Amino acid sequence: MPAVPSSSHRYEQLAAEWAEGIAHGTLRPGERLPSVRQTCQAKGLSPSTVFQAYAVLEERGLVQARPRSGYYVAARPAAKPRPAPVAPPAGGPRPVAVSELLVELLGSTRDADVVPLGSAFPAPALFPFDALARSGARAMRRLKPAQITGALTAGDEALREALRHRHALQGVALAPEELVITHGALEALNLCLQAVTRPGDVVVVESPTFYGALQAIERLHLRALEVATDPVTGVDLAALEALLQRERVAACWFMTRFQNPLGALMPTDHKQALVALLARHGIPLIEDDVYGELHAGLQRPPPAKAFDAAGLVLHCSSFSKCLAPGYRVGWAAAGRFARDVQRLKMMSSLSTSLPAQRAIADYLAQGGYDRHLRQLRQALAASQRRARGLIARHFPPGTRCTQPEGGYFLWLELPPAVDALALHRLALAQGISTAPGVLFSADARFTHHLRLNVGHPGDARLDAALRWLGEAARRCVTDNVAP
Amino acid sequence: MPAVPSSSHRYEQLAAEWAEGIAHGTLRPGERLPSVRQTCQAKGLSPSTVFQAYAVLEERGLVQARPRSGYYVAARPAAKPRPAPVAPPAGGPRPVAVSELLVELLGSTRDADVVPLGSAFPAPALFPFDALARSGARAMRRLKPAQITGALTAGDEALREALRHRHALQGVALAPEELVITHGALEALNLCLQAVTRPGDVVVVESPTFYGALQAIERLHLRALEVATDPVTGVDLAALEALLQRERVAACWFMTRFQNPLGALMPTDHKQALVALLARHGIPLIEDDVYGELHAGLQRPPPAKAFDAAGLVLHCSSFSKCLAPGYRVGWAAAGRFARDVQRLKMMSSLSTSLPAQRAIADYLAQGGYDRHLRQLRQALAASQRRARGLIARHFPPGTRCTQPEGGYFLWLELPPAVDALALHRLALAQGISTAPGVLFSADARFTHHLRLNVGHPGDARLDAALRWLGEAARRCVTDNVAP
Repeated sequence: MPAVPSSSHRYEQLAAEWAEGIAHGTLRPGERLPSVRQTCQAKGLSPSTVFQAYAVLEERGLVQARPRSGYYVAARPAAKPRPAPVAPPAGGPRPVAVSELLVELLGSTRDADVVPLGSAFPAPALFPFDALARSGARAMRRLKPAQITGALTAGDEALREALRHRHALQGVALAPEELVITHGALEALNLCLQAVTRPGDVVVVESPTFYGALQAIERLHLRALEVATDPVTGVDLAALEALLQRERVAACWFMTRFQNPLGALMPTDHKQALVALLARHGIPLIEDDVYGELHAGLQRPPPAKAFDAAGLVLHCSSFSKCLAPGYRVGWAAAGRFARDVQRLKMMSSLSTSLPAQRAIADYLAQGGYDRHLRQLRQALAASQRRARGLIARHFPPGTRCTQPEGGYFLWLELPPAVDALALHRLALAQGISTAPGVLFSADARFTHHLRLNVGHPGDARLDAALRWLGEAARRCVTDNVAP
Repeated sequence: MPAVPSSSHRYEQLAAEWAEGIAHGTLRPGERLPSVRQTCQAKGLSPSTVFQAYAVLEERGLVQARPRSGYYVAARPAAKPRPAPVAPPAGGPRPVAVSELLVELLGSTRDADVVPLGSAFPAPALFPFDALARSGARAMRRLKPAQITGALTAGDEALREALRHRHALQGVALAPEELVITHGALEALNLCLQAVTRPGDVVVVESPTFYGALQAIERLHLRALEVATDPVTGVDLAALEALLQRERVAACWFMTRFQNPLGALMPTDHKQALVALLARHGIPLIEDDVYGELHAGLQRPPPAKAFDAAGLVLHCSSFSKCLAPGYRVGWAAAGRFARDVQRLKMMSSLSTSLPAQRAIADYLAQGGYDRHLRQLRQALAASQRRARGLIARHFPPGTRCTQPEGGYFLWLELPPAVDALALHRLALAQGISTAPGVLFSADARFTHHLRLNVGHPGDARLDAALRWLGEAARRCVTDNVAP
């Protein structure tokens, strides 16, 4: 089933139409957008609808207002080229050990004095914590004590029903009994991975891949096998097919929407083909979809789960990146493995903390979630645009940078002379965190790559930090080239 | 370090003194307690203190008031004898598979229409959920957003400090950096077990043992080895020592206070000897201590952790059984393995849900926790006494029943003719849950045993349910003996 747009607001449709024109070049930089009068006449819309569409595009940096003249398509910032795909290592599957470096990294990003370019979360100011606290208190008072002590392993029923309903609106049909609420997506992913593997098994991951996948593989004594991954379109399906014919694979762990760290968005027909390919081989797909709600475009692309007829897709996501960091509420919709996942959940943490589940269920019932998401997406898209401009200006020639259609990460390929881990440590000494590329593969291969979090629009230190990083990277190049 | 009494109220000291006299027979059933006047003169106490001591003992069923006469030591109910120790199987370590039966059991105990004799939790009415909800809302509003998104893997600092302080008052010195807050004790135990084992390793457990230990062993592909366990004093240290000389053991998983299901309380000198024995062998002890606060006596016995000089005791507990079921807030104080446990926590669920942590931290800061615990202990002790009386009356001859000094479980050894699993299913059809003995060993050995939850003092259905169970057990005996 294809995805349905998240909202039918008319101003959003109009903004989407113009944004597409800008993306495809039918509306060029410097060109004036149709006026309010023209647009109202041509489309039968009210002036306020047209003004709202202008506002959306201005917020996203696609147009600029000129006083007493109108709205003009913004000039594109000089952009760095996108990184090239990197071939994974030729060797077979390998055990993993990345967790020590991660302890260092995660420790540093929690220091409020450090500029959080290495962080995994968007800026805290972007989330409605007060509303969530009110929701939590209200919802817990309303529960009967027996409902609290009897908290279900599968999770709060109101929350599961809300999730099922949201997914259905997006064209993703989930069976109610397939959903298990977990302590964040990370627990969901770990439970799903354990449900479909035994120690020693091979798991295919993207290249580069989310370090959480590598950690889970390490913790469960599995072996990782990387598949070639395009920075724009995600997993290379031909490479994956060849690999499946060569190796005995227990599961794949992919992010099809705004992959961490690349930001890659797998095209919808690729997702369909991926699900079909894995169904032919009978291999489960663990779909880590924590950034799915954070699309920069006005249309929400579907997850692979939307095409899962065989029950082989274990879809995992959470509210941690889009609504309630720190609450640790996620879920798995584990298809034919749902019972196993629920059993593993019961065995490892029994049930998910109820105050957080109830807070989110109540918040969703209040109806403000979609408005919050629209604001969050706009803030992240504007922030990404700004950061890409700064990177284009300050980083050394030869730098390549992704241009993701969602999420809040940029993936930088620096000139090969730059030791990104050394740069990370230099930056940390300056109070700037980054996520060095070596975290994102089992063999520490991405030595001159960085993942930067650009989801902190309110942080006044970001511009200076990006400039400092760019100049430090230039110095690395100069120092290495000099005799 | 020895444990310090939980409270210095003078009436509690007086009640403890008399309770000890009753326990040791220096105050006999039917004998009159010293009068208010006598006691005030002899001990220099106020009349109100003496009246409070009477009230405590009456609440616990140890004395009875006779109008215009005074307080008299209560007659002891006709008691069933205690179960005899059961020798563990002679074979070596074995893999485990108990989880399917558990899914059935846990499912049934969540049905509000079922009398919860098989439940793992005390009655919901015993917990201060409204105060916790207020605390949660207040504490979340007070946090800065950056403190929410930056939630620490080790846990909320105020909560960790409160735990450290409480343990210090009880004579258990914990290093601040050794504490990790987890999603209930079950996550703590699972993380600790993983921190000290590799797949295939041997873990020593009690006999019978908590099914959660068996599940964790199953999930991590370990093997369980049972050690002889006395229903009153816990693990047989001589048997353990012999076993350690014979087998290569990776860890022990024991409950030294009010063991589940036996209720055994390991004597303090045994705990010291246990810690010393394991230190000589360099073997970690995972101490599951979730019932430690639920002592029926007025003195809180110490956990094994109190004697841990080598950092080999991984002490795990939670608020789930004594304050906040459903909140899923527990902890591990993992000694020299604390860093490994923290790393595993980061890898599997990142951090513990903040609203629940903050609710409990705020509740503890309000100062009502010890009062709540005193009420809870009295309610559970009175409830146990009542249930033991009913069991003595209704269960068939040959039944043996524990008399634990804390917690809220009774362990029944029925006549060997009774198939306890069949009885469990018969009872479930009548709307009564029980926990059949086969859940409590790797080889389903306790075929004529039941664990009964007697922590539901407010449930009017309990008396009838215990009578029904006793009569059904009698019928099982008769049917099996008849030709």
